[in-house]
Amino acid sequence: MTALPTHLFEALDHVGIAVTDLDEAIAFYRETYGMTLAHEETNPEQGVREAMMTVGDPEHPHSHIQLLAPLSPESSIGKFLDRSGPGIQQMAYTVSDVEAVSQALRDKGLRLLYDEPRRGTAGSRINFIHPKDAGGVLVELVEHAADTAH
Amino acid sequence: MTALPTHLFEALDHVGIAVTDLDEAIAFYRETYGMTLAHEETNPEQGVREAMMTVGDPEHPHSHIQLLAPLSPESSIGKFLDRSGPGIQQMAYTVSDVEAVSQALRDKGLRLLYDEPRRGTAGSRINFIHPKDAGGVLVELVEHAADTAH
Ligand SMILES: [Co+2]
Ligand SMILES: [Co+2]
Repeated sequence: MTALPTHLFEALDHVGIAVTDLDEAIAFYRETYGMTLAHEETNPEQGVREAMMTVGDPEHPHSHIQLLAPLSPESSIGKFLDRSGPGIQQMAYTVSDVEAVSQALRDKGLRLLYDEPRRGTAGSRINFIHPKDAGGVLVELVEHAADTAH
Repeated sequence: MTALPTHLFEALDHVGIAVTDLDEAIAFYRETYGMTLAHEETNPEQGVREAMMTVGDPEHPHSHIQLLAPLSPESSIGKFLDRSGPGIQQMAYTVSDVEAVSQALRDKGLRLLYDEPRRGTAGSRINFIHPKDAGGVLVELVEHAADTAH
């Protein structure tokens, strides 16, 4: 396990936004805000079709907006849309070692959603802090795949 | 007016989180996540007591979390807490010229909350996109004061 710095999180990785129609949302972010589509994929385990839009200069991305559309009404995003409508659903921090950070947070009494990291966007490894232990915020921890620029 | 790049937003400036007790929230972000308090102030015009917590290495901040506690139940944050409870309330993009970006968005048919920028954190100038025109997201635009590192 890596020795962790005092600041457990390296960066604001992305803000995740629940949308009903992914293509429409991509078009809005592109045409209205001038953002670039960095990546698009379907993640059946997370029950989403998703797109990462680049925040900042696309040559030197600062961060991302993750647009999340549900694969089914029973998925997390499907339920979120049903309860709250479209809007901010989660925020994600970049971590260097998702297992070490998860364990450090468990040691401080926080519950994580998964016992082991799962597969996130573009081969990343992710876990989530339970919103009840994080001031009502769904916090995702993202360890990027070694070969992925971010 | 500055000529704007295609990407209207330079960076993910901060994510704003509604909290009931600011001191408790600062202590949680500090002790649990290892974040540093960058700035604290009361903004009567916005009806908040707020704190900016640094995301990333405090020597080279990547972004911030803005903890927002209401000055009164009738303030925006007071109403948000009443409706939704504590959690993510807004997200903010850094812009180089808040007037130019606001006007570019108005030209695309979006409503901004203010006719003229108002005073945000640490002397910044801010405006907000109406959530109904931004996919349910309360989007803040932040032009930092010239002498403020961010
Ligand atoms: Co995410
Ligand atoms: Co703000």
